[in-house]
Amino acid sequence: MKRLHRKERVAAILKILSDNPNKVISLGYFSDLFQSARSTLSEDIAIIKGVVESLECGVVETIPGAAGGVKYVSGVSKNEETEFINELCNMIKNPTRIIPGGFLYMNDIIYSPDIASKIGIIFSQHFKDKNPDYVITVETKGIPIALMTAKALNVPLIIVRRNSKVTEGSTVSINYVSGSSKRIQTMSLSKRSVEKGSRCIFIDDFMKAGGTANGIIELMREFDSSVVGIGILIESFTESKRLVDDYVSLMKLKSVNEESGEIVLYPSKQI
Amino acid sequence: MKRLHRKERVAAILKILSDNPNKVISLGYFSDLFQSARSTLSEDIAIIKGVVESLECGVVETIPGAAGGVKYVSGVSKNEETEFINELCNMIKNPTRIIPGGFLYMNDIIYSPDIASKIGIIFSQHFKDKNPDYVITVETKGIPIALMTAKALNVPLIIVRRNSKVTEGSTVSINYVSGSSKRIQTMSLSKRSVEKGSRCIFIDDFMKAGGTANGIIELMREFDSSVVGIGILIESFTESKRLVDDYVSLMKLKSVNEESGEIVLYPSKQI
Repeated sequence: MKRLHRKERVAAILKILSDNPNKVISLGYFSDLFQSARSTLSEDIAIIKGVVESLECGVVETIPGAAGGVKYVSGVSKNEETEFINELCNMIKNPTRIIPGGFLYMNDIIYSPDIASKIGIIFSQHFKDKNPDYVITVETKGIPIALMTAKALNVPLIIVRRNSKVTEGSTVSINYVSGSSKRIQTMSLSKRSVEKGSRCIFIDDFMKAGGTANGIIELMREFDSSVVGIGILIESFTESKRLVDDYVSLMKLKSVNEESGEIVLYPSKQI
Repeated sequence: MKRLHRKERVAAILKILSDNPNKVISLGYFSDLFQSARSTLSEDIAIIKGVVESLECGVVETIPGAAGGVKYVSGVSKNEETEFINELCNMIKNPTRIIPGGFLYMNDIIYSPDIASKIGIIFSQHFKDKNPDYVITVETKGIPIALMTAKALNVPLIIVRRNSKVTEGSTVSINYVSGSSKRIQTMSLSKRSVEKGSRCIFIDDFMKAGGTANGIIELMREFDSSVVGIGILIESFTESKRLVDDYVSLMKLKSVNEESGEIVLYPSKQI
């Protein structure tokens, strides 16, 4: 690569760090790439820390020692998070979203790459200190937000299937009772998916009584692994006892009135 | 925001552009954000174009006119693409991946956020000139690479279900015959998912005879929409006639020998 000036190099380093959130990149890597002395790069990193701070888009950390380097941890400011979740609530509260049965059509929102990315960054802020090895979700609707959470945390995604598939090889399946409908459901995961002793964050788009979350906890036990965090986009009020109590939700859905078109939904943090 | 020096502002602008690939951002937005004159920002953009060129990570385009601005189109160099696909081939050719029935276990690869991101960028390079309105995929395994393609193209993702779900509202379902197994399959999509007259890119992880791709083309016809591109991670050799002929694949799988453990797989471009 041709030699870059500081103003170019600083931008290039931030671009590389930002494309690889939560990944430690050694100064040696940058030194080889840009033919620059480590002392010069340390000054570059100091400038980058200031830029990220000004943009309030996370934090750049320097990790000392032989395995050290620098990493970008993605984030959004408290204000931006609040504004974003308010905006989501307003989008969802549109009566045209009501589907017979009192469900809400949300695919356009939860499958939007932009929105899913931001939700992923918000969840990653909640769970980064749990040092997770994986993000786990159940097919299908939670996959985009779970993938973006995994990207922000720099860990692999695991997708649990509703039925075991021949293309997954040997699987572990469990039956569980859905907390709200009381129906027996199955979930299934390839034996190769998870290493023993892993720490997982479960991410899903919706939670009512928590039967699925509870099922995932049980499934992870079969892998000698544990669920160290649960992130839910929307939790719904339920009269049955909730089966899990330690979780983070971004929004709470109180009621959907099919006749009047009223949807009572608010950010979880307001409570 | 406090006033930034050029070396900081250039990095900040590149970070914002890079987080929003294929999205036109007006100079007015940056002018307000950084309290800088447009002439100053134009010089910043020129520097950023050089940085992106040096990193060979896409291109920054200036769009003139009232609705104009600047956008970052993500990309990888030809060399990087070739190296990456070779690497993927080597990862996949590991005999321990063979699953009874001659399938290959690939979840750790296709669910990796890093790998899925790169595949998404590569597909976006192939299809950006088609001006797509959506990226479309069928649940489940293709979702991560399809989402990352949609992100790079800055268009919404559509996920077709195998069965219609109550939470999707009214759906359009079609039955189609799988090209290789000759079994009748169903796919189903919410009526609200696609606007009439849309241009879609179909992304999937695997294609044999092309029955699913063909089904998607038929399904899109029901929405008065069209499939303007097909991107497949791995195409498999098949003795039946392929049902679609216009597609891009990244790798070709010739054979999997369960006894010897030999997997014949190579980059599609070598042919």
